[in-house]
Amino acid sequence: MSQSHTSRPLRVGLVGGGRIGKVHAKTLQRAGAIVAMVGAACDFITVAADFGISRWTTSAAEVFGDPDIDAVVICSPTALHAEHIVEAAKHKKQIFCEKPVAFSVDKVDEAIKAAEDAGVKLMIGFNRRFDANFARMKQAIDCDEIGKINMLRITSRDPGAPPIEYVKVSGGLFHDMTIHDFDMARFLVGDEVDEVYAMAQSVNPEIAAVGDVDTAVVLLKFRNGVICYIENSREAVYGYDQRAEVLGSKGSVAFDNKHSNQVVVSTNESVRRDLPLHFFLERYMDAYVAEMEAFIRVCTTDGSSVPVGGPDGREALLLALAADKSLAEKRPVKIDEFR
Amino acid sequence: MSQSHTSRPLRVGLVGGGRIGKVHAKTLQRAGAIVAMVGAACDFITVAADFGISRWTTSAAEVFGDPDIDAVVICSPTALHAEHIVEAAKHKKQIFCEKPVAFSVDKVDEAIKAAEDAGVKLMIGFNRRFDANFARMKQAIDCDEIGKINMLRITSRDPGAPPIEYVKVSGGLFHDMTIHDFDMARFLVGDEVDEVYAMAQSVNPEIAAVGDVDTAVVLLKFRNGVICYIENSREAVYGYDQRAEVLGSKGSVAFDNKHSNQVVVSTNESVRRDLPLHFFLERYMDAYVAEMEAFIRVCTTDGSSVPVGGPDGREALLLALAADKSLAEKRPVKIDEFR
Amino acid sequence: MSQSHTSRPLRVGLVGGGRIGKVHAKTLQRAGAIVAMVGAACDFITVAADFGISRWTTSAAEVFGDPDIDAVVICSPTALHAEHIVEAAKHKKQIFCEKPVAFSVDKVDEAIKAAEDAGVKLMIGFNRRFDANFARMKQAIDCDEIGKINMLRITSRDPGAPPIEYVKVSGGLFHDMTIHDFDMARFLVGDEVDEVYAMAQSVNPEIAAVGDVDTAVVLLKFRNGVICYIENSREAVYGYDQRAEVLGSKGSVAFDNKHSNQVVVSTNESVRRDLPLHFFLERYMDAYVAEMEAFIRVCTTDGSSVPVGGPDGREALLLALAADKSLAEKRPVKIDEFR
Amino acid sequence: MSQSHTSRPLRVGLVGGGRIGKVHAKTLQRAGAIVAMVGAACDFITVAADFGISRWTTSAAEVFGDPDIDAVVICSPTALHAEHIVEAAKHKKQIFCEKPVAFSVDKVDEAIKAAEDAGVKLMIGFNRRFDANFARMKQAIDCDEIGKINMLRITSRDPGAPPIEYVKVSGGLFHDMTIHDFDMARFLVGDEVDEVYAMAQSVNPEIAAVGDVDTAVVLLKFRNGVICYIENSREAVYGYDQRAEVLGSKGSVAFDNKHSNQVVVSTNESVRRDLPLHFFLERYMDAYVAEMEAFIRVCTTDGSSVPVGGPDGREALLLALAADKSLAEKRPVKIDEFR
Repeated sequence: MSQSHTSRPLRVGLVGGGRIGKVHAKTLQRAGAIVAMVGAACDFITVAADFGISRWTTSAAEVFGDPDIDAVVICSPTALHAEHIVEAAKHKKQIFCEKPVAFSVDKVDEAIKAAEDAGVKLMIGFNRRFDANFARMKQAIDCDEIGKINMLRITSRDPGAPPIEYVKVSGGLFHDMTIHDFDMARFLVGDEVDEVYAMAQSVNPEIAAVGDVDTAVVLLKFRNGVICYIENSREAVYGYDQRAEVLGSKGSVAFDNKHSNQVVVSTNESVRRDLPLHFFLERYMDAYVAEMEAFIRVCTTDGSSVPVGGPDGREALLLALAADKSLAEKRPVKIDEFR
Repeated sequence: MSQSHTSRPLRVGLVGGGRIGKVHAKTLQRAGAIVAMVGAACDFITVAADFGISRWTTSAAEVFGDPDIDAVVICSPTALHAEHIVEAAKHKKQIFCEKPVAFSVDKVDEAIKAAEDAGVKLMIGFNRRFDANFARMKQAIDCDEIGKINMLRITSRDPGAPPIEYVKVSGGLFHDMTIHDFDMARFLVGDEVDEVYAMAQSVNPEIAAVGDVDTAVVLLKFRNGVICYIENSREAVYGYDQRAEVLGSKGSVAFDNKHSNQVVVSTNESVRRDLPLHFFLERYMDAYVAEMEAFIRVCTTDGSSVPVGGPDGREALLLALAADKSLAEKRPVKIDEFR
Repeated sequence: MSQSHTSRPLRVGLVGGGRIGKVHAKTLQRAGAIVAMVGAACDFITVAADFGISRWTTSAAEVFGDPDIDAVVICSPTALHAEHIVEAAKHKKQIFCEKPVAFSVDKVDEAIKAAEDAGVKLMIGFNRRFDANFARMKQAIDCDEIGKINMLRITSRDPGAPPIEYVKVSGGLFHDMTIHDFDMARFLVGDEVDEVYAMAQSVNPEIAAVGDVDTAVVLLKFRNGVICYIENSREAVYGYDQRAEVLGSKGSVAFDNKHSNQVVVSTNESVRRDLPLHFFLERYMDAYVAEMEAFIRVCTTDGSSVPVGGPDGREALLLALAADKSLAEKRPVKIDEFR
Repeated sequence: MSQSHTSRPLRVGLVGGGRIGKVHAKTLQRAGAIVAMVGAACDFITVAADFGISRWTTSAAEVFGDPDIDAVVICSPTALHAEHIVEAAKHKKQIFCEKPVAFSVDKVDEAIKAAEDAGVKLMIGFNRRFDANFARMKQAIDCDEIGKINMLRITSRDPGAPPIEYVKVSGGLFHDMTIHDFDMARFLVGDEVDEVYAMAQSVNPEIAAVGDVDTAVVLLKFRNGVICYIENSREAVYGYDQRAEVLGSKGSVAFDNKHSNQVVVSTNESVRRDLPLHFFLERYMDAYVAEMEAFIRVCTTDGSSVPVGGPDGREALLLALAADKSLAEKRPVKIDEFR
């Protein structure tokens, strides 16, 4: 539940009106928090009007510099994230930024430093931390339902590859897709990774042609000894596949996919049910709402800190870079090589 | 998806601020449709303020008579439903009324006639028609996934008995609880019932003391031969239990309970998961939202008709009355005895 | 586990080589217990030879009169059961007899009396008492995992109707099929039934033509107040459907169907698994083995008593007769009408 | 179904009366195939007598040299397997040998050559090939239910570590436990492995103390590009965990654990079921029976070949050796390093 500790609602500027921008616009509208939007010309009708945003501009600087705006939600292309964070921090805005923060450690460090220097909050959009399944799994671990963790599996598959133009600028599978799993692994294990090993292939020839992979297993060895294996595919025709499983000394905790209904049809051929929720918007809509509510709460509650911040974005990036290197050099890679 | 065909949003007056009144207030607020509320003094703070309702009164007549209001959502006590419908119809308001419409057929007929005479729409709050599981089950039937229906089961159990003061004025189990299942049976089978037989007991002595039952099986024989068995309990300690199952000539369709997460914990004692969604507000929140969106759509779309109307409320009442009589007289009762 | 307390193995004569006769022959062969068989001429090759039975005759009297035989397993047609029990008892054989014992109470009483007078054991073939699911459900009840029982559901459906010639001599649905469910209801509730109400139809015109029903719900009111509803169909195209569910004051216990494998296939159309075990031979094979092992153990252990005996067969028959009468007279029928 | 094409039953000598020796003794007894046994003195009472084996000796040579014996089932300690195979082949016995064949490639090659030279059959005890779940998964692949394979997961966990004395002589986790998973991976993918990478830890200090691991993930890259990840633990307190999952271009096929019953208990605390089948004897008993029936069939059917033979044992060994080396040298290891 969102509880406001200030007398007036937060005033938020939304930067970017793409797929994820629209998701946040909806939650911000319900909270009565959205007041301005930065977007391309076409966003005015499809986003601003739809979500009742009266002020609209193509200039990010205009929003960052507006003294009436308390906070910004950055959904611009990844290449602009760090720059937008720095600019917003300069104007003392509270900041929510989508994942990944950037493709290089330097850029991430610059963004983190800017927020720290300005004394503003910087929250990173790892939405799965707000998902009921991951949260319940974390609770099982924290409440000692399964003892000490020994092993962790994350299965994360997309129902199909994105447009090849997107793949080209995505930073590659580990930065675009596995980045979420890297964050979840750290979140669940509660420790940092020592070593990474990646094995991958491209089953989609288009993806191979642009030098990326679409099918991968990444092994993480944590400092505390825990072994994590992450499995990704961009080619799960039955839909978005989001499962995880933790083996501990006193038991295991696991979750299966989420479906839009519980209906089972039995005929003389099979016992069947409908496919799982198709993709991330359907699967994680509740998590996106909880995430933005958390950001609003953090911004309006004195002394509160973000549940997932810049350093989390930095660590996930290190893991992606290590996975890239492991794949290129066909060997396990220590995270210390990047610190 | 709600699609408005009028240039200005619907203006709705909410009558009643109890548990279900708050549910509808929330959806109406999101749609920007709520403009006034009728409630007791205490509702002003807990409902009107919470849901941004600026106009508030203790007089239903004031809202019914307001020319600026297009439609009313009636969540008053059942004893007032019919009277409120008649009054609202007199002022040409579109009407949504919670179930059950009334405890007597005369009252229901009076309400239906008033709406017909006034040429206004009357939609009844059988929320389960808008639930994803029941809707998918209906689709399986309509799309001939399971052939001709032979038998139908509805299991509907509450996690605990309501306060005994509520039980006293509820009209009894069949009017308060089974009424939903009667409507679902008609909805799924697509035919009318010929005969009813009820067997019941009271496991809760308090409920027995006020002459009601809390544990029952009701058999329905439809005109087309289909046998339906409804099972109710007010004492399912593990939570709200909402399941149904249809056997057809080409297969069966069934659904199990809905949970807030898919997490399974395995220890050296058991493989277990959390309880199902606890009660109707959690379980059917999505259905309540879809229901109110449907009402708004019907009100704002010329020529559209309500998905569930007065005659549906009337038939469900006949079944409840037949079940009462069957239990009292220990014999199967024909619906024709009430027509 | 079978543990013999006598120095030499039991010597059993098998009466009848039909479907169920073969099942018992196999278990008896493994136990080294089978020594003779009564069958039709055709059984010699298909049963006796297959199961290594060296002695074979068409005369039941010959087997009953053989002093080298300790026990008989009666799998003859139902019409002969009582007569065979009486004859076997006369020769002091221990007796296992398939269900139902007979179609009339007099016949059953005669059989029970004969066994009692002769001081021999009489065990009745209600195989489901030896099924892992029903046994675990009974354990949950006995160990107070779900508190005091309030309600019980038994779903029992066949994958298809038997040959119409069989239906004609089967005694009708309640004697042939529901008889198992009647026994299970008594077994699980641990009390006797007070009243029975049956609602049924024939969806298969051939079955209607011979005056039987194939789709039914039977309600049982137990003396202790428990309500049981049994649901039967002979037309479940997806296979043998064997489920049960008990609601108690502290929770519920339920089981779903059993499958030959746990494999799930997900495609772009559905998430599906293979059908449940097709019919009673597949579904209850383990139970048949445990049942015959129990009979052998009872016969070879001094002072032991049968886990399910003549009086159980008698009570199940009373329930079937009451269901017949309820259906014919369209009213609830007290079991006392038959005592 | 076992169908004999010879006029007299196979005569089998069983070598070894340990845990797995008893399993095979039972199946051989039912088939009337077992005629002699080689065992330690203590086995006479606990095995030979129990399974009706009349001839019993402590000398393997005596059984191998017996002209009345057609086939041998070798369940001796792994260190003796190859030697026993060579000796049995010399006497023209058909041979079934438990896994693993040996700890060194030379020994395995020697055994394979001996069987080939003698013209006798050599079947290896990879029992999981005869399991209903793995078989149904293989069928889904072969019948193109899921298209071209892209990725494969095998989860295989034991409910607890074996006695440390056993661990010491087991050859290590990859030879003792993962060996089954290596065979299953090859069986399901239908191709050979190119490269292996292993990551592991010892959560049990006793196992660490003897230089072995108990928690591991092994990655296999097949020649055809398929990525397989095998996960093992000796510390799954909830029981034997045997699952697998294949992702293909047209869908996925997966199976979950097998339970002794389908019963679910719901209370005010949780919805729970009993633990999965506890260990390999319970979980794979049906597979062991089918395996031995297959061996008998192969031995008694002219021109038939074994479903899983010496070369399968050899390949699984290579994978175990590569996993050992990968773990020791912290790098991916090519199988060609061992060819």
